[in-house]
Amino acid sequence: MIDISDIEAAAKRLSGISVRTPLLRNFELDQIAGGVVLIKPECLQVTGSFKIRGAYNRLRQLSHEQAKKGVVAWSSGNHAQGVAAAGGLLNIKTAIVMPEDAPRAKLENTRKLGGEVITYDRYSGDREAIARGIAVDRDAALVPSYDHEHIIAGQGTVGLEIAQDAAALKLPPDQVLIPCGGGGLSSGSAVALKDRFPDVFVYPVEPADFDDTARSLELDTRVSIEPAARSICDALQTPMPGELTFAINRKLLQKGLTVSDDEVRHAMRFAFRNLKLVVEPGGAVALAAILSAKVATADTTTVIVLSGGNVDIDLFAEIQAEPN
Amino acid sequence: MIDISDIEAAAKRLSGISVRTPLLRNFELDQIAGGVVLIKPECLQVTGSFKIRGAYNRLRQLSHEQAKKGVVAWSSGNHAQGVAAAGGLLNIKTAIVMPEDAPRAKLENTRKLGGEVITYDRYSGDREAIARGIAVDRDAALVPSYDHEHIIAGQGTVGLEIAQDAAALKLPPDQVLIPCGGGGLSSGSAVALKDRFPDVFVYPVEPADFDDTARSLELDTRVSIEPAARSICDALQTPMPGELTFAINRKLLQKGLTVSDDEVRHAMRFAFRNLKLVVEPGGAVALAAILSAKVATADTTTVIVLSGGNVDIDLFAEIQAEPN
Repeated sequence: MIDISDIEAAAKRLSGISVRTPLLRNFELDQIAGGVVLIKPECLQVTGSFKIRGAYNRLRQLSHEQAKKGVVAWSSGNHAQGVAAAGGLLNIKTAIVMPEDAPRAKLENTRKLGGEVITYDRYSGDREAIARGIAVDRDAALVPSYDHEHIIAGQGTVGLEIAQDAAALKLPPDQVLIPCGGGGLSSGSAVALKDRFPDVFVYPVEPADFDDTARSLELDTRVSIEPAARSICDALQTPMPGELTFAINRKLLQKGLTVSDDEVRHAMRFAFRNLKLVVEPGGAVALAAILSAKVATADTTTVIVLSGGNVDIDLFAEIQAEPN
Repeated sequence: MIDISDIEAAAKRLSGISVRTPLLRNFELDQIAGGVVLIKPECLQVTGSFKIRGAYNRLRQLSHEQAKKGVVAWSSGNHAQGVAAAGGLLNIKTAIVMPEDAPRAKLENTRKLGGEVITYDRYSGDREAIARGIAVDRDAALVPSYDHEHIIAGQGTVGLEIAQDAAALKLPPDQVLIPCGGGGLSSGSAVALKDRFPDVFVYPVEPADFDDTARSLELDTRVSIEPAARSICDALQTPMPGELTFAINRKLLQKGLTVSDDEVRHAMRFAFRNLKLVVEPGGAVALAAILSAKVATADTTTVIVLSGGNVDIDLFAEIQAEPN
C-alpha cells in the first residue's frame, strides 16, 4: 500500500519531466455548477495525458539490469505513449501491446516516441496475456497500466498538485471527480488528496457500460463488466478494477459516478467551445458528470480532472458538428 | 507612457478575475526548435483570449459617473467578449461595434455575456467612427481595443506573468514572440519583460498582409496596410499601429515577423495534435513563426504567446482535415 511519501518521491522524480498542469476556471462552468469548479487539464500533459507520470516513475526505478533488457506494457494508447516517452528519456527499449482499433493518433505517436507497437483484437484477444508472454520471452520487466505501486504513486502526483494548488488559491476542495479505468489515477490521487484534505470526497467517474469500479465499490468486492460492454471512451475500457488500486479505492473513494456516451460528447463540445481544450472521450467523463448533474455542485468547490486529449480529428469534428 | 508599476497595479486589479495561465512545454516543439520553447496559452484565459485583462483594467478605473452611462467599444470579437465580460462583472452596460462577418462564436458569446452588439461591414465601414458616434450620442466612455494606457497596462500582465514564471522555472527567456494587431499586447508585455529581463528580444508577429507594425518598425514611423489586404487571422486585421502602442513598440521591440495563412493553418494543426489546445488563426501566429523558422531558436529559450482560441468549428474542422 502506498502512502503520501511515495507520491512526494514520485513528484521529485518527475520534476522537469512532467508538466505541472494548472487549475483553470471558467465563468460558464461555475454558473452551471452554481459553485466553484477547478479544472485540472491533464490533456496538456506531455504525450497528451497523465500517463507519463506513472510510466516514468516506474521506469526510473528499474535496476540497471532490468533497464538493459527493456520493458513490455499493454495499453489502449495513453499509457503506451507515456511508456514510450519515458523509455526515450531514460534510454530503455519499450514494447507495447495495443488494440488494433486504438485511435490512429495514439498508435502513431507511440511509434514516433520510439515504442515498438504490437496490435491485438480488443474484443477477442487478452492483452495482458500477450504482454506477459512477450515479457517472459525477452526476460523484460512489465509496466502494467495501473496495478503497480510505482504506477499508482506516479499518477498520484496529479492529486498532490491539485491539493497544493487548491490550497494556494485558498479554495479547499469539497469534492474531486476523477476519470476511472483501472483505478490508478483515482487511487493515487485519493491518497494525496485525503492526506491534505481528510474530509474531501473523491468520486471515480466511468462510462455507463464500464462501471466495474462503481459496482465493485457498492458490493465492496471486485466485479467485472459484461462482455458486451461498449463505450466511446477508448481509454476507460478496463474489464475490472485492479487488485492494488481497488484495495485503496474501497477505503478512500465515494460511490462511483457513471456517464453515457451522449453526455461525454456534450462535454467534449463544451470543452472545445468554452475551455478551448481538446479532450478525448475518456478524458471528458468528469466534466460530463458535472454538466449532467450526477453530483450536487451548488455552493461547493469541485475539482474535475480532464485526463487526456488524444482524439482523432474525424471523431472530434463529428462530435463538434452535432447539435448541442 | 506606462511603466512597470502600471502593470503591477493592473495585475492586482485582475487578481481573481483573469486566469493566471501557465507556461507549457512540449517535447516535439522543443525538438523542432532545437531549444526550449515555453508556451503561454491565453486561449485558456476567461472569454478565450487575453482581452479581458485590458478591458477589465480600463472599466475598473472608470469614475462612478462614467460607469453609470455605460461604455462603447469596437472589436473584431475578442476585445468584444472581454469588454462584455468586464461589464458584467462590474455591472456596467456595454455596446460593441463588430464586423458582421466576425466568427459566429465571437458574436454569440459577446451577446451571451450581456454586450449589446452593433454590426458593420468590415471592408467598407469605419468601426472606430461608428463607435465614436454612438459614444457621443450616449455620452458614454470609449474602451479602445488597444490604444489606451489602461488597456496596454492590462495586456501587459501577460508579459509580467511570463517574466515571473520563466524566472521561477530558472529559464530566463532569450526571446518572446507575441501576436500583434494594434500592438496593445506586445507593447504592454514588452514593458514588463524588459523591466525583468533587459536583454530579452521581443518580436511582434503579424499576418503577411497585415504587416503594418513590421513596416512601421522598419521605417520608424506609423504606416498603414493596403486596402486589399486579406488574412485568415480575423483578430489581427488592424489597419495601422496605435499611436500609444507604437510609441512604446518602436523603443522596445525587435523587427516584426510575418507569417502566411498556410503557416497559420499548419500551426493550428500542430496545436490540436500536439498541444491539445484550440487556437484561433490570429492566436497561432507566434507558433507559426517558430514552426516555419522565422527566427533562430536553436540553443535558446523562446516564449510564444497563443493569444486566443475563439474559432468556429466549421473553419477549425476544415483546417484540421487538411494534409499536414
